[in-house]
Amino acid sequence: MKVATFTIAGERRVGVVDPDARIVTPFSLSAEQASRGIVALIERNGTGTPRTLSPIPLDAVTLEAPIPLPARNIFCVGKNYFEHAHEFALSGFDSSASGGAVPKHPIIFSKVPESVVPTGADVVIDPQVSVAIDYEAELAVIIGKGGRGIARENALDHVWGYTIVNDVTARDLQGRYSQWLIGKSQDTFCPMGPWAVTRDEFDLERASVRCFVNGEMRQNAKVSMLIFDIPTIIATISQGITLKPGDIIATGTPVGVGIGFDPPKYLRSGDFMRVEIDGIGALENRVSERTA
Amino acid sequence: MKVATFTIAGERRVGVVDPDARIVTPFSLSAEQASRGIVALIERNGTGTPRTLSPIPLDAVTLEAPIPLPARNIFCVGKNYFEHAHEFALSGFDSSASGGAVPKHPIIFSKVPESVVPTGADVVIDPQVSVAIDYEAELAVIIGKGGRGIARENALDHVWGYTIVNDVTARDLQGRYSQWLIGKSQDTFCPMGPWAVTRDEFDLERASVRCFVNGEMRQNAKVSMLIFDIPTIIATISQGITLKPGDIIATGTPVGVGIGFDPPKYLRSGDFMRVEIDGIGALENRVSERTA
Repeated sequence: MKVATFTIAGERRVGVVDPDARIVTPFSLSAEQASRGIVALIERNGTGTPRTLSPIPLDAVTLEAPIPLPARNIFCVGKNYFEHAHEFALSGFDSSASGGAVPKHPIIFSKVPESVVPTGADVVIDPQVSVAIDYEAELAVIIGKGGRGIARENALDHVWGYTIVNDVTARDLQGRYSQWLIGKSQDTFCPMGPWAVTRDEFDLERASVRCFVNGEMRQNAKVSMLIFDIPTIIATISQGITLKPGDIIATGTPVGVGIGFDPPKYLRSGDFMRVEIDGIGALENRVSERTA
Repeated sequence: MKVATFTIAGERRVGVVDPDARIVTPFSLSAEQASRGIVALIERNGTGTPRTLSPIPLDAVTLEAPIPLPARNIFCVGKNYFEHAHEFALSGFDSSASGGAVPKHPIIFSKVPESVVPTGADVVIDPQVSVAIDYEAELAVIIGKGGRGIARENALDHVWGYTIVNDVTARDLQGRYSQWLIGKSQDTFCPMGPWAVTRDEFDLERASVRCFVNGEMRQNAKVSMLIFDIPTIIATISQGITLKPGDIIATGTPVGVGIGFDPPKYLRSGDFMRVEIDGIGALENRVSERTA
């Protein structure tokens, strides 16, 4: 099941997207429930889905991020594909030196919830703040069942589903501030969507993540090539931090980001980014420049 | 004005603590407002305080953290006192190597909101997860007026007030995972309180922060000795991240943490931590060991 959060006539709704992505069928939810996006559904875990209302053409609604405002920062994994770990280590921006080019343990950092924007929204760059902004196409995990001390073997039982995240990063800030929170959390730097897909419909073994900038393919990798797989990531975080329904974990980006090129291909105003993951869809965002 | 969040008869309230810390006078707030702790007050910025109800003896209530569940991760500053930066660099756990012993720019990381516990609550250590747990006494800033691109000169206008945070840290996890989120965000690792004090009543120039473990003074420094002062921290974060009312920024810890000793003085079950800041009060938490 693909589940989208969207607005129509100024009201936020949550609904099922049909396989052809032409129609969305909203659930009957209170405004308070719908305000939390698909978390309203996730929290019903095991009690089925709410009844549905009349279908609406998808092009008549405005998509929002599946979880428009997460209840806490988004967990993210750094340097989680081999070739990307090497391209980042060579870029000069890698402050996580103790891990070496390829980390021995997962590198976990966060992005603030307010950095989330939906497909179709602009990623706004501000040359006064950063001159080295980069894309990072990633598969994101959405936690369904919370828990602490989750074992690798059971970890996928805690996954509600998946979505796409573009972990937009200010490389200069990422390097300057040593810890990555600031470089990763700039306003609008977390495009997410276009919707989420439930675990049962997503093929972790076969799906690829691809990123295009202005139509040029920059990244293309199977998500099964992660250095630390999803069960390991969930086990690592939850060892001493209780995971919650609705938590989001961006699993890391493959080789091909802007700093992997010589000279680097940083994002510029007008650039159009498209991140695709098989079985989910495409997350599209244009880059624009902040005007004072 | 000192403002506390507390429960009495199972209901959460927010109220003013008298100068002798004997009486608390609750505000008239709805349950929904009170659920957010002092944020209910912060969001009234400029419109005065709500009317008050009958005073209650402070020892008849159970204190909660002033903001029991922040709306996003707590911002924290690393290595922000000179002598502490050196003791940490010498400890072998410092993964932020690119900054050198004394950072050239503020190091900003985060702790998850759910790590917050009030004064009087246990900090729970789990020897299965970490064997190197440390205290960090810190002054925390509470943002009143949000904003982006806040200039150093106006930064203190955006501060609603101050509280105390004990930035409890699993040193082994802090080192192992390179980025500090996991080592800093373990369940119960963010004691906060005992209440907050408004900006007008707090003397940033004269106040000292002290930490005692089992009555032994371990840390004692003037908060004015920060490497990066509060206006610089606010300007740095808000340069590209919009700050929000109720955001919390822990400003860093002075010399004297457990890893500064040889051998290190890690926290053990039964230890009693007391963090004092002049003009605020004392935050007290016992350490206990997790039982399966």
